[in-house]
Amino acid sequence: MTHPSLLPSPAPGARLRAALQARSVAIVGASADPSKITGRPLAYMLTRGFEGRLHPVNPARSQVQGLRCHPSLAAIGEPVDLAIIGTGADQVEGVIAEGIAAGIRAFVVFSSGFAETGDTGRVLQQRLRALARSAGVAIVGPNCLGLANSATGLIASFTTALESTPLRRGGFGLVSQSGALGAYWMDIVLRSGLGFSQWVTTGNECDIDAAEAIACLADDDDTRVIGLYLEDIHDTAAFRLALQRAAAAGKPVIAIKSGRSAAGAAAAASHTGALAGDDALYDACLLQHGALRVGSLAEMVDVARLFLRHSVPAGPRLAVMSVSGGAGVMIADEAEVRQMSVPPFDTATCHALRPLLPAFASPANPLDITGNVVQDTGGIARALLAVARDPNVDAIVLFVGMMHSIAGAFTAALAEVRAVAPRPVIVVWMSALPETIATLEAAGLCVFADIPPAMQALAGALRARALQAAARSSPVPAGEPAAT
Amino acid sequence: MTHPSLLPSPAPGARLRAALQARSVAIVGASADPSKITGRPLAYMLTRGFEGRLHPVNPARSQVQGLRCHPSLAAIGEPVDLAIIGTGADQVEGVIAEGIAAGIRAFVVFSSGFAETGDTGRVLQQRLRALARSAGVAIVGPNCLGLANSATGLIASFTTALESTPLRRGGFGLVSQSGALGAYWMDIVLRSGLGFSQWVTTGNECDIDAAEAIACLADDDDTRVIGLYLEDIHDTAAFRLALQRAAAAGKPVIAIKSGRSAAGAAAAASHTGALAGDDALYDACLLQHGALRVGSLAEMVDVARLFLRHSVPAGPRLAVMSVSGGAGVMIADEAEVRQMSVPPFDTATCHALRPLLPAFASPANPLDITGNVVQDTGGIARALLAVARDPNVDAIVLFVGMMHSIAGAFTAALAEVRAVAPRPVIVVWMSALPETIATLEAAGLCVFADIPPAMQALAGALRARALQAAARSSPVPAGEPAAT
Repeated sequence: MTHPSLLPSPAPGARLRAALQARSVAIVGASADPSKITGRPLAYMLTRGFEGRLHPVNPARSQVQGLRCHPSLAAIGEPVDLAIIGTGADQVEGVIAEGIAAGIRAFVVFSSGFAETGDTGRVLQQRLRALARSAGVAIVGPNCLGLANSATGLIASFTTALESTPLRRGGFGLVSQSGALGAYWMDIVLRSGLGFSQWVTTGNECDIDAAEAIACLADDDDTRVIGLYLEDIHDTAAFRLALQRAAAAGKPVIAIKSGRSAAGAAAAASHTGALAGDDALYDACLLQHGALRVGSLAEMVDVARLFLRHSVPAGPRLAVMSVSGGAGVMIADEAEVRQMSVPPFDTATCHALRPLLPAFASPANPLDITGNVVQDTGGIARALLAVARDPNVDAIVLFVGMMHSIAGAFTAALAEVRAVAPRPVIVVWMSALPETIATLEAAGLCVFADIPPAMQALAGALRARALQAAARSSPVPAGEPAAT
Repeated sequence: MTHPSLLPSPAPGARLRAALQARSVAIVGASADPSKITGRPLAYMLTRGFEGRLHPVNPARSQVQGLRCHPSLAAIGEPVDLAIIGTGADQVEGVIAEGIAAGIRAFVVFSSGFAETGDTGRVLQQRLRALARSAGVAIVGPNCLGLANSATGLIASFTTALESTPLRRGGFGLVSQSGALGAYWMDIVLRSGLGFSQWVTTGNECDIDAAEAIACLADDDDTRVIGLYLEDIHDTAAFRLALQRAAAAGKPVIAIKSGRSAAGAAAAASHTGALAGDDALYDACLLQHGALRVGSLAEMVDVARLFLRHSVPAGPRLAVMSVSGGAGVMIADEAEVRQMSVPPFDTATCHALRPLLPAFASPANPLDITGNVVQDTGGIARALLAVARDPNVDAIVLFVGMMHSIAGAFTAALAEVRAVAPRPVIVVWMSALPETIATLEAAGLCVFADIPPAMQALAGALRARALQAAARSSPVPAGEPAAT
């Protein structure tokens, strides 16, 4: 007799991928009310154009939200790829068993009342885990906010983050152990116009964990950057392999790991039942396998924006152009603090800049383009292009402020420069109008509202790339199997 | 014969105060075009209700912007408190001499072309300085954006920051050596609803310098917090005394000092002609005399908001309440990193919280109030008040996110709590609607869009208060005269 753990197991990420690519979805306890947790997924998928088939399940109803409703999973009568479960905790195991019997291989469990509530819930959760292992199915959750795939319109989630914002496809994928933070991420990412690929909240992780989700996104063609919110890792070996897999695929992993303080670790334990462990070990693990650790969702999104908009410089040498001498000084300061440099311009650049500047100004880096010069948008475009061709610099940081009356002409000039400049142009626009920011972002530029977040993001992106390069060149940790 | 420098000099800040309180203002070279630098001040003061009299001066016109125009300063025929000058650099000295002859005691010089342009300009600037000293008048600038006083509606500035935003009185005063950064500050402060007291940009500082301006604001009844942007200090002794004066008056000074990097210091030299000096000395000087050094305008405004809204806690012990367990963990982490604490609640608080929480949740700090509980705005208000009475905590940090559909009821409950809570409530509302933030800020609450800036501001405000207390208890630096 073969021990079950010696049976060939599916490739990392494969079981979750099947759930994310579901084309036939059942909702157990489906509600007619689109504001209820078992009504929202249906309502979202109906209105956002889910490409697959939806099967409400509720013995008390014959129709739900205009769809035929089935009394049980077994009664659906056609193959189902994924079942969404939002029942009371005590019914979850039975529903999953029924689904397994009906041939369903993936489940998303919203229900709370498991390990996060104490010993009784912990036992219930262990039973779900055993069920997943014995049947080889995938269970996401319990106590999670579910998942979404922007390519197919699958929204197996009740997050309110999708209430008023349309889905938008993009290269940013998220794995979050916290549902709420995952929801805020979704809201920020969609409202910033970035779009997302896959979105996975893992909750209590009775089966599908963050490592499985990272491995899944590492192999996902739509995903170019992976965001990660972590409180606790159960299977460190799988987690290390997943990070290596992302590094091998050239997909930066930008991680928040919370619970680094004593009070934070205690809070994490009561949140998802996590034992936060020694923060320094997590720090070393993330570093070794190429993940960038950041301190907030805003920073995660800022670093990701640079990657997604092809605005990560090839190196740390910055040209600084500013309408305010003071701001130029502050940018140079921040560059030095964050291990970037502001080198002198090449002679050819100086020659090209001379006629574009006031008589008394010298073409130094940082370059004070002054409030008068900036009115001449053609001149600024020529100056930007001259600097963008300088062999001594890897990117331009352009600082402007307000300029509401000439914002239209200026943004048009910037969009043209962006299209032809051989190096990225990062814009810091203090007190910009919202429409100005939206126009520039739509043109593929990265715009920041203040100097520190821009410089933090640039330094973070450079570091993320360097960390992954180092991880790729180092061997897989000793004693652990190579990724398949 | 007595040497001029032994004559009694006016009290620090007194000459600038006279300029800020001007009730009769001349504009030399006044333009009929409200978008020109000598047209804007007139247009601003005419439309924003300046309380005093305005005197355009321009030999080519008999009327400017509907006002009688005079051929010269001497021809105005009534006392003038302040003359605004935006002529070419070569004419400035003559105009000031004419004004002095006509009895004018204060001048604001917008004109550039002085020390920032090289040796010729430096000589011109030294002549202005000599004129100010010999006649005992005040000259602000040259190469500055001027000044403004929200109490009287005096706007001796051409900043575009006032184009579309109304003046608003408040307790925040600014002293900036950079005009552009001063303008962004004005824009941010007015749009955030804070309002300002006095606004002074000092430019090249031929006479009135940052020290004089700090001393002036330290004595100004309308000013409760002083913001400071510095590149260079010429008269260190006066600067130290000015900071001590602010500390003695209990007015926090929040300072940006740029030029700390090599590249930044070089850039500062070409910006305002400043020799940025050894950054560590500035650091020590600011610290010793109670000024908080920050890294951005956003951080300056965030710290100031806490003081202006009476939201600086008495100590570093925080209660954390959060709709997201993950966010609670992150706040606890940030508190510990920034030398604040998240202590256990008092027994009475735990008893009061019990009935307001789900059965399985324990009243721990940080407190996970969960997405369900937050729907009950009355319950949240009771929980906030229970925690606000806890003797173990100095402030509450409340984290919420999105909640657009219940934002109205929730903000109303928070405003009520704010009115009666014995300790400050700091709100971190991720992905809030702009109108939600505006409502809460109008109710006197401090709202932040993300965790790090909130925690940075709290830590900064605690530190600013501690630094000033230390400065007050330390003697004036040896060898320097006491402040009068």
